[in-house]
Amino acid sequence: MLEAYLDVRRATERLCEPLEPDDYMLQAMPDVSPTKWHLGHVSWFFETFVLRRYLNGYRPVDDAYQFIFNSYYNAVGPQYYRPARGLLSRPTVAQVYSYRARVDKAMQELLERARPDELAEVGSLIWIGMHHEQQHQELIVTDIKYNLWTNPLRPAYGAVEPRSISPSELRWIEFDGGVYTVGHAGDSFAFDNECPAHQVYLRPFRLASRLVTNGEFREFVEAGGYQDWRFWLADGWNLVQKAGWQAPLYWERRGEQWWVYTMNGMAPLRDEDFVCHLSYYEADAYARWAGARLPTEQEWEVAARLWHQAMVDARTCDAARPERTARGAGALEQMVGLVWQWTRSPYVPYPGFRPWPDGLGEYNGKFMVNQMVLRGASWATPPSHVRLTYRNFFPHDARWQFSGLRLAQDA
Amino acid sequence: MLEAYLDVRRATERLCEPLEPDDYMLQAMPDVSPTKWHLGHVSWFFETFVLRRYLNGYRPVDDAYQFIFNSYYNAVGPQYYRPARGLLSRPTVAQVYSYRARVDKAMQELLERARPDELAEVGSLIWIGMHHEQQHQELIVTDIKYNLWTNPLRPAYGAVEPRSISPSELRWIEFDGGVYTVGHAGDSFAFDNECPAHQVYLRPFRLASRLVTNGEFREFVEAGGYQDWRFWLADGWNLVQKAGWQAPLYWERRGEQWWVYTMNGMAPLRDEDFVCHLSYYEADAYARWAGARLPTEQEWEVAARLWHQAMVDARTCDAARPERTARGAGALEQMVGLVWQWTRSPYVPYPGFRPWPDGLGEYNGKFMVNQMVLRGASWATPPSHVRLTYRNFFPHDARWQFSGLRLAQDA
Amino acid sequence: MLEAYLDVRRATERLCEPLEPDDYMLQAMPDVSPTKWHLGHVSWFFETFVLRRYLNGYRPVDDAYQFIFNSYYNAVGPQYYRPARGLLSRPTVAQVYSYRARVDKAMQELLERARPDELAEVGSLIWIGMHHEQQHQELIVTDIKYNLWTNPLRPAYGAVEPRSISPSELRWIEFDGGVYTVGHAGDSFAFDNECPAHQVYLRPFRLASRLVTNGEFREFVEAGGYQDWRFWLADGWNLVQKAGWQAPLYWERRGEQWWVYTMNGMAPLRDEDFVCHLSYYEADAYARWAGARLPTEQEWEVAARLWHQAMVDARTCDAARPERTARGAGALEQMVGLVWQWTRSPYVPYPGFRPWPDGLGEYNGKFMVNQMVLRGASWATPPSHVRLTYRNFFPHDARWQFSGLRLAQDA
Amino acid sequence: MLEAYLDVRRATERLCEPLEPDDYMLQAMPDVSPTKWHLGHVSWFFETFVLRRYLNGYRPVDDAYQFIFNSYYNAVGPQYYRPARGLLSRPTVAQVYSYRARVDKAMQELLERARPDELAEVGSLIWIGMHHEQQHQELIVTDIKYNLWTNPLRPAYGAVEPRSISPSELRWIEFDGGVYTVGHAGDSFAFDNECPAHQVYLRPFRLASRLVTNGEFREFVEAGGYQDWRFWLADGWNLVQKAGWQAPLYWERRGEQWWVYTMNGMAPLRDEDFVCHLSYYEADAYARWAGARLPTEQEWEVAARLWHQAMVDARTCDAARPERTARGAGALEQMVGLVWQWTRSPYVPYPGFRPWPDGLGEYNGKFMVNQMVLRGASWATPPSHVRLTYRNFFPHDARWQFSGLRLAQDA
Repeated sequence: MLEAYLDVRRATERLCEPLEPDDYMLQAMPDVSPTKWHLGHVSWFFETFVLRRYLNGYRPVDDAYQFIFNSYYNAVGPQYYRPARGLLSRPTVAQVYSYRARVDKAMQELLERARPDELAEVGSLIWIGMHHEQQHQELIVTDIKYNLWTNPLRPAYGAVEPRSISPSELRWIEFDGGVYTVGHAGDSFAFDNECPAHQVYLRPFRLASRLVTNGEFREFVEAGGYQDWRFWLADGWNLVQKAGWQAPLYWERRGEQWWVYTMNGMAPLRDEDFVCHLSYYEADAYARWAGARLPTEQEWEVAARLWHQAMVDARTCDAARPERTARGAGALEQMVGLVWQWTRSPYVPYPGFRPWPDGLGEYNGKFMVNQMVLRGASWATPPSHVRLTYRNFFPHDARWQFSGLRLAQDA
Repeated sequence: MLEAYLDVRRATERLCEPLEPDDYMLQAMPDVSPTKWHLGHVSWFFETFVLRRYLNGYRPVDDAYQFIFNSYYNAVGPQYYRPARGLLSRPTVAQVYSYRARVDKAMQELLERARPDELAEVGSLIWIGMHHEQQHQELIVTDIKYNLWTNPLRPAYGAVEPRSISPSELRWIEFDGGVYTVGHAGDSFAFDNECPAHQVYLRPFRLASRLVTNGEFREFVEAGGYQDWRFWLADGWNLVQKAGWQAPLYWERRGEQWWVYTMNGMAPLRDEDFVCHLSYYEADAYARWAGARLPTEQEWEVAARLWHQAMVDARTCDAARPERTARGAGALEQMVGLVWQWTRSPYVPYPGFRPWPDGLGEYNGKFMVNQMVLRGASWATPPSHVRLTYRNFFPHDARWQFSGLRLAQDA
Repeated sequence: MLEAYLDVRRATERLCEPLEPDDYMLQAMPDVSPTKWHLGHVSWFFETFVLRRYLNGYRPVDDAYQFIFNSYYNAVGPQYYRPARGLLSRPTVAQVYSYRARVDKAMQELLERARPDELAEVGSLIWIGMHHEQQHQELIVTDIKYNLWTNPLRPAYGAVEPRSISPSELRWIEFDGGVYTVGHAGDSFAFDNECPAHQVYLRPFRLASRLVTNGEFREFVEAGGYQDWRFWLADGWNLVQKAGWQAPLYWERRGEQWWVYTMNGMAPLRDEDFVCHLSYYEADAYARWAGARLPTEQEWEVAARLWHQAMVDARTCDAARPERTARGAGALEQMVGLVWQWTRSPYVPYPGFRPWPDGLGEYNGKFMVNQMVLRGASWATPPSHVRLTYRNFFPHDARWQFSGLRLAQDA
Repeated sequence: MLEAYLDVRRATERLCEPLEPDDYMLQAMPDVSPTKWHLGHVSWFFETFVLRRYLNGYRPVDDAYQFIFNSYYNAVGPQYYRPARGLLSRPTVAQVYSYRARVDKAMQELLERARPDELAEVGSLIWIGMHHEQQHQELIVTDIKYNLWTNPLRPAYGAVEPRSISPSELRWIEFDGGVYTVGHAGDSFAFDNECPAHQVYLRPFRLASRLVTNGEFREFVEAGGYQDWRFWLADGWNLVQKAGWQAPLYWERRGEQWWVYTMNGMAPLRDEDFVCHLSYYEADAYARWAGARLPTEQEWEVAARLWHQAMVDARTCDAARPERTARGAGALEQMVGLVWQWTRSPYVPYPGFRPWPDGLGEYNGKFMVNQMVLRGASWATPPSHVRLTYRNFFPHDARWQFSGLRLAQDA
């Protein structure tokens, strides 16, 4: 476990290597956090929920960090005002790295010293902390992209975002209606919001074989999609007009050509890539324009499970197929690890949901309102953090995440 | 049909009888509309969707009304700025009543002149218009209550709100899990958002036998419920602090006694009455404090159908009971016609939902985001407007509707 | 004095005759007040500062009026929230007229009953009340114009605004530098802010013989004046861009022709009329564009006194002229009674200024910041309210007053 | 001149020595600028107004700097959005220092290469640039103090603010009324807003012999001054309530003791020090409470000239005193170099004011509205930047400058 812990910690710091010292404090909108704050907060998480509770004699680095690096845990205490995180010049970057080192040393001490029975108790908290830090690894990337983009120089972070190979023709994969099971079961790690596994009744539906591409979305833009109320939810249409949206975030028109801001600076838009940085409203409007709709999160998960089973079957040459299955779930492409896929499902508790105990009950449960579920993980999600039952969630207007879409239809 | 039409129209005007001329133009917040505007808008609805389309030679009263009284129908044209409806001193109240009379006369002409086959075509639009006007009848009442309340004189509208008889002990009614059908089917009138009927899978659940009372909610208030983050969704807790909420809308502390603003002016709070004028956040927080939760709209509808069947059975002495039923759905009380009951269900399209054609597609569909479903109708809902499949919907922070709650639990 | 009092009161009510009942409650922006509120407030002024203090046994009509109709007198007590005056449907218009009648009757009683020595004491307060009501007479007109204009029907109030006869060629009238006296002295009525008379040192200056016309201002508009930062103060330029100003308030471009909203509805713009409804920023920008500047209030008053003297001399054929005078002050035109003329003088206390005693100290003194002085009175100012020492004042961005300008230059 | 130039430039950089790298980008409110931006902007000033115009072959470091470091010069081009200066992680601090070095090298080249007649032409621009940089030296200090203060750790910048020696008893120094001359005349450097020298008529007045102290102001605070509308201008009173002001900026109550944030961190308030960090509204309210008023800028300057003359006379043992003088102007203390002293004079153009030509006309003139004049300079003003005719100006609500007050009275 120590090795896993240190792997996660090192991965976080590797993400900061391309940054200039000046970049660490950027907070270009309240939704994003400065890299420096992310670095401190994930350490605070281990300090607060593990070290203060389980390491005898642990002395916190600085009591003020309890306040400064607390994101939203009322059970832990008051929190520094979120939109002003970019004003925390102190602690300095150097002090935050030193904080990380102190926490790592203490964690090492704890893990080496702990008896197996003690480890059983604290281990689940450490796993949560590691998954928590992985979530922030993705946020470090999405946030720094947004932060650097607001600079008129449009500087490059220096990483290359993945590109599509030439996309296949879109096909519609059909799924039967009936009662299915969704949600997480078993002993492996999952967040509380993925539980419990439960049955749902689905009507027959179709899912697009692949993600929507830049080229397809460009047609919507150029057909006047952002000027036509008919495709939009009322709240979305209001937002489009008020914010003056004309295209996805990071798109920029230069003469006849669309350009797009990437982790590597400005680049011409590639039609064959999957579209990214959409809000829910834009994904929903595109789907309506395309004569389709977004899938529900249940439809997405059912399809993903069947697709996964088909992948496993293919590898194991297992001829015995499950009784009821999608006609061709194995033909699904780009299911995970490219862009998060908006679903039409509001983020609500699963039937029978129980938040984690103690302070960690605030991790997910209190946000189950005013947000939509995204599925499938993005290229910035650490691979060991990807799960078919994973429920990511963001407000309807959020665009700075790596968020795209896959179409669905009633069958 | 003419009789039904005129009944609805007369009912609207009767609601205005207690008003002073000065009251007609009040708009104390953007969400409410002046009574005068309601009176014009419901007439505009018939003019726009019926008379302009189907009455040969119909000459609109004033072309500017097309703009002024259009609520949100982009298909009809641009709309006057909603938050400024209270500034429309012209047309005057007298002119709006004369507009109503002109529309009524034209509707009468249309209905008397129409052949049966024509009636079939236009009839469904007229039904929609009548149900539309009934919705505004309730809004006239909720809006004028809010408008008058903002006056420091706290004037009375002059109607007595219904009161509870001494409430019974709360009992938990149990319902089996399994696949149920919900949603509207058949030829009777329903809004598009109630369709299609479809199957859902429910886990076993319990429903409280009656509504939550003022007395019960007062305990929550006095136990510090509005000062304790543990009971609140994060967005709700932010709102409570920002808006300084300390109790439901219209409650007012005077020394040791709670008072409440009613349609009849200020009155001491009666513990035995059902609590009213809650936002979703408050209903949800109360339920959590009480060790329960809000029902989903599907749970509510399934229970309501069984309750209704039990009522019918009781009246018809039908001994042949459906195979699977609630253990005692007939024991449910206060199911409809007192206060709207918040559910934990976001307002989303039913699987297979199709908006109405033509301009009326904007009636419901484009609002299916950022709102929660309420069920059960209030005392201000016209009785002929009540349906067990009816889906009312309001944003999470709305408190000026007659909105209360009934508790649920996992079984 | 009773006759004078009743004259003022009747004049106020005559201004309301063209109104529909619906118009009385309009408040289209926080700066304006509903006519109904004006009617109540001026009565409250007499009730508060005269009747409550001096009429034995006077019983206020309604104690809540003390709060509702208090504009800004902290010494009297708390005030109803100004931007919500348009929500006061109660007291009704009928009740407010009845309030006026009650106050008038009590004032009559007071004046008839008072002994001469008592009258001396209360008389100055009554004079203040009458001048106060005259100020509100002008505000009733400016406010109702703004209120009706926001209605998409652009209804007419029904009065004809004065027009210029064909304006003369603009001439520059020269004034010597030196020490002058400005400010009010003597026993006649004046507001505290006009006192004391005091000496000022002026450099030689020139004043335009007449007001700026619509035609002249139209040239500025059509020459791109609203798009060129060079003519604007920084705060003005920010406002022009943020508010999207393109022309004076009430101007409207229809094809090739400018139209303007008047008390009588929309009418084509007449080039020969004096320009009106400018903010300070626009008046200042125009002056800079025209190679001139606004006069200071001292320059304006010095010129006005000389002009007035010349008028008197002309009438009395007095050949003995004051030693030092303007070369031709008698040639000044349009000095008073057409539009208020912006000066470049911030509204600050005169040297030696003392606010009125008691509650009336709040009348003027506390507003001596963030406002600019206007001089000369408008056509909506009651003639008996015009004075050459009168200091009107409004914030830099106010446009709904009858505010124009006259140019000045260093000599 | 080169030496003077380099002195100014070095002084700027010395101010940054106590900063951590993280501190350079802080912008805790729109009114302040990050240290990094100040460093770049003052260099941009020389580049824009001197090097681009006069150094043949000068190649700007980066064309984007023209936009990024332009504060408000529309004549130069568009400007980066001021409130977002804190988001400019690029150019980095290192790049900005390298920009400074490049500009210095080019300036050196220009100055060494220029013939005397060329120097005459460019010299006045360079003097302006040096005085401009000195203004920013003070802003660097005021801004970093504000920026660091918003950090919950209240870090110290590391400088000690000057303290009063035990203050003398306050005496009132009397000045005669009459015509005086104020404003700058002669060949020495002055900003355009100090010109032309001109005559003013003053009434007799008194000026306090010294500044108001913390102890005196604390009495006002503890007597409920911030809770009593009677002392405040209406706009000030609104602000006090809305912003919740209870004491000057940086004051903090800890039990019975007042503490204050200084450049060296938190420290107990010293009663004998001069009060600092007041807005105009607070200075004005205190003066009213103390039965006095603020001086006009003319009164201040007249007194300061006489005081200065008295100082010179004392040193030169010149027995021949000017005919008319203050009775004891030499007894004035703390006139310059401690805190800026609010005057009651709005910042308006002097009679006959002419803005500088070319792009520099925007330096002062366009801000002559909505601001008040401060006189006397603070401890953070470079000594060579202090002048008795100097007109500093800030909006009425500004508190982060080193701003205090001296009382005045009518004589």
